[in-house]
Amino acid sequence: MSGIDILGFCAAFCTTISFLPQAIKVIRSRDTSSLSLAMYSIFTIGVSLWLAYGLYKQDLAMIIANIITLVLATIILATKIVNDVMVKRNNPAQ
Amino acid sequence: MSGIDILGFCAAFCTTISFLPQAIKVIRSRDTSSLSLAMYSIFTIGVSLWLAYGLYKQDLAMIIANIITLVLATIILATKIVNDVMVKRNNPAQ
Repeated sequence: MSGIDILGFCAAFCTTISFLPQAIKVIRSRDTSSLSLAMYSIFTIGVSLWLAYGLYKQDLAMIIANIITLVLATIILATKIVNDVMVKRNNPAQ
Repeated sequence: MSGIDILGFCAAFCTTISFLPQAIKVIRSRDTSSLSLAMYSIFTIGVSLWLAYGLYKQDLAMIIANIITLVLATIILATKIVNDVMVKRNNPAQ
């Protein structure tokens, strides 16, 4: 494994695993007030497209990294949607 | 441009631009309470490593995408750090 391969691995590891503390925080606190619904919607679509790209290219590292990110982003997005729907139900004027 | 190239472009566009609505939300509301400091710290490091990787590989698309993401992630991270420092100053017992 060359130096540039290690750099790429570290980059992929960081951007993939970074969503874990956000997912844990969301699960624990149930607070998603300052999270952007648009961000997690567009991001989840983007990661799904990256996964499709990785599957087409048969790139195992890309497939695994995007499956992990997709699971974490979906947890955050689903919690955000549930919270926003509940806020609208409780405050129909909003 | 082949179909798979378009798929890759759309994936990169979504995961890059997704941070724009979050950055706008943070700038407008100044609220970062439910954002994870660990997420944006690790993510910003990861994007910096991807930028270094792109520079080494002389991949212009990767360089541009990661510069945009780095700017947006840094805005969010800096606001989060400033807010957390201010909260600690106002509530030293925390």
